Amino acid sequence: MDHDERRLLIAEATLRVIKQAGMEGASVRNIARESGLSLGALRHYFPNQDELIAFSMNLVKERATARIYEVMSRDMPLSRKALHTLLELVPTDDNKLAEMEVWFAFTAHYRNKSAAFDAQHDGILQLIEQLLAALHEAELLRPGLDLALETERLYAFVDGIALHALLDKKRVNYEQIEKLITYHLKSICTDAAFP
Amino acid sequence: MDHDERRLLIAEATLRVIKQAGMEGASVRNIARESGLSLGALRHYFPNQDELIAFSMNLVKERATARIYEVMSRDMPLSRKALHTLLELVPTDDNKLAEMEVWFAFTAHYRNKSAAFDAQHDGILQLIEQLLAALHEAELLRPGLDLALETERLYAFVDGIALHALLDKKRVNYEQIEKLITYHLKSICTDAAFP
Repeated sequence: MDHDERRLLIAEATLRVIKQAGMEGASVRNIARESGLSLGALRHYFPNQDELIAFSMNLVKERATARIYEVMSRDMPLSRKALHTLLELVPTDDNKLAEMEVWFAFTAHYRNKSAAFDAQHDGILQLIEQLLAALHEAELLRPGLDLALETERLYAFVDGIALHALLDKKRVNYEQIEKLITYHLKSICTDAAFP
Repeated sequence: MDHDERRLLIAEATLRVIKQAGMEGASVRNIARESGLSLGALRHYFPNQDELIAFSMNLVKERATARIYEVMSRDMPLSRKALHTLLELVPTDDNKLAEMEVWFAFTAHYRNKSAAFDAQHDGILQLIEQLLAALHEAELLRPGLDLALETERLYAFVDGIALHALLDKKRVNYEQIEKLITYHLKSICTDAAFP
């Protein structure tokens, strides 16, 4: 196994530990145990904890980004593509809910601690801005909308759903999330967009 | 100073510590120092940390509830009352942003730890449900809306704004928040509601 593969396995072990025990449980010792490595061997791959955590969060981010680009490259009508892209941003399966869990624990822990972690600038706002601009360009948005406010509204709505799914996944379950996103999108799109 | 007054002062010191140092900094030792009490004296008022933190979070909740009832008791048109009630649920001043900070730190820390803390059932969903029902009753909502989905949508929107204000208060500033809430409310209300 080469250096990069080992780092990836350690990052995946880190995500499992955060999911199970939160950031408080994500000690170098616990991560070494979950990785099946000695402390010394772990330090060989990640000299300090901050670097390890940052690498693991980047892994979450890269996977989410890859999923989003995969959806955007599909051949389907723009309005359906917008719907499926938005559905990638909210927890619609166990895997994405676990990622949200890691994001939440990570953000709460690091937001006041280090300028190196920039959880709030994850590109989602820009993505939503582009989606709405494309729908507008294709004349699929209802007339009279304020695009800047619609962007912030949709961004807040999507992150609010993710937060609520995390706090009460029984009420805000996967089926309900899909219903809500579809409902919002229909409310801002023309009838022709979702025939 | 009587027992209850002292407990209140300790809770306020606890909130200041959480605001400054997060939940990780909210040790009994730090809270005693911020309260100007010895560890022994602090234990006289709060035998353990969980009880102290729960009491402090309840203080935040009670103050928010009191503010909301004050707004709802005002004599003004229903649509404006709905707007001002919703504005109480989002950080529109430094004090409310600090409360949100405490809520976030508290929820992230305790959500997997104790059944005694029930941050997600704070009555906000029921409040929003009632608000929309009252607007519907008064025929101030646009026809054809799904009230159940509108309730979840508004709840997610409001908490998403609060989250974003916390993560990037420069972009999601107090003026922007008021604009967003007003915009959403206008989008679901009839033109007569906000003449």
